[in-house]
Amino acid sequence: MNKGILVVVSGFSGAGKGTLMKRLLEKYDNYALSISVTTRSPREGEQDGREYFFRSREEFEEWIEADRLIEYAEYVGNYYGTPKDYVQEQLKAGKDVILEIEIQGALKVKEKLPDTLLLFVSPPSAQELKRRLETRGTEAPELIQNRLRRAGEEAKGILGYDYLLINDDLETCTDVMHRVIQSEHYRMQRSREFAERIVEELKEL
Amino acid sequence: MNKGILVVVSGFSGAGKGTLMKRLLEKYDNYALSISVTTRSPREGEQDGREYFFRSREEFEEWIEADRLIEYAEYVGNYYGTPKDYVQEQLKAGKDVILEIEIQGALKVKEKLPDTLLLFVSPPSAQELKRRLETRGTEAPELIQNRLRRAGEEAKGILGYDYLLINDDLETCTDVMHRVIQSEHYRMQRSREFAERIVEELKEL
Repeated sequence: MNKGILVVVSGFSGAGKGTLMKRLLEKYDNYALSISVTTRSPREGEQDGREYFFRSREEFEEWIEADRLIEYAEYVGNYYGTPKDYVQEQLKAGKDVILEIEIQGALKVKEKLPDTLLLFVSPPSAQELKRRLETRGTEAPELIQNRLRRAGEEAKGILGYDYLLINDDLETCTDVMHRVIQSEHYRMQRSREFAERIVEELKEL
Repeated sequence: MNKGILVVVSGFSGAGKGTLMKRLLEKYDNYALSISVTTRSPREGEQDGREYFFRSREEFEEWIEADRLIEYAEYVGNYYGTPKDYVQEQLKAGKDVILEIEIQGALKVKEKLPDTLLLFVSPPSAQELKRRLETRGTEAPELIQNRLRRAGEEAKGILGYDYLLINDDLETCTDVMHRVIQSEHYRMQRSREFAERIVEELKEL
């Protein structure tokens, strides 16, 4: 059986990443979503092991010590991280594991695990990103301005990604994402074992 | 409009490359097949500009001088080459251009044009390759032995390819090849212009 691929998905907030992930998992069944571990308190309706693994600061720091996290970051006084065990189990079982994290974390994962596939989701234009944030109507104008400024700063990092997907239409983008991930299974770097075996076999004929 | 991708397809003889190319072009319409130029004489039924462009040795050497070939090689006293003009026209028109050449030529093209996509087609095993060559029944056993030996020597080069496709079932392999090429359009290296533009746009918002 083929080993799965660790896929990191990032995107500007407002790019529609959340909806896209949800649709991908509904539509195709070879994916597993990585669940993050955090030290923040569960919100109303959140369940341990579903939205997040909720752990104490002490436990989280034990996980860091024991190298049980692929990456972690501290954000507004709380830790967020990606547990290694769950990801590795799913990859071994042949599932492609989707990890949704921001650009800096994504680049760190790729450095540590070079076989990771980095996908960046973008709206068709900066104007469209602004429009989407405004029409959501959930945020104050200065918060939107903040998000856009941060997007501009982060954006330089996207050149380190493997693929750029434009989220113009949800269904199209979901299908493109699926095909991009599945095609990646045929990359030579993931087929070295087969390639080397057939070279040996040919010699012995 | 997106620019097309130059796709070089190679494979062991007996891997079923020819049938695969034919099926790809029948099934999907965004491809153009590159036509080689040669100094060998046309065989019965071959037409200039369909199977090959047939040119004199003198003309061919003029093409080499004028840098009108992407790559060329001499084989059993005849020249074979890939005309640059036709390929560039088709790429500009948004077509993905398929070029079927052997491993050494493929690696030369990639060196000259790094955006070229290299696909290698292999049967599922060396035994299966041998079986296919034998059941074709068109070749003497020592010729088959020859082909297998050459396959073994060439095979080291396949690690320089971008993708490895296993041709076990024709329809499956045709579809995988199509999806691999189409996914490649979303590679970051092919989307730099868009990525850089959106970074600039975000700064100006």
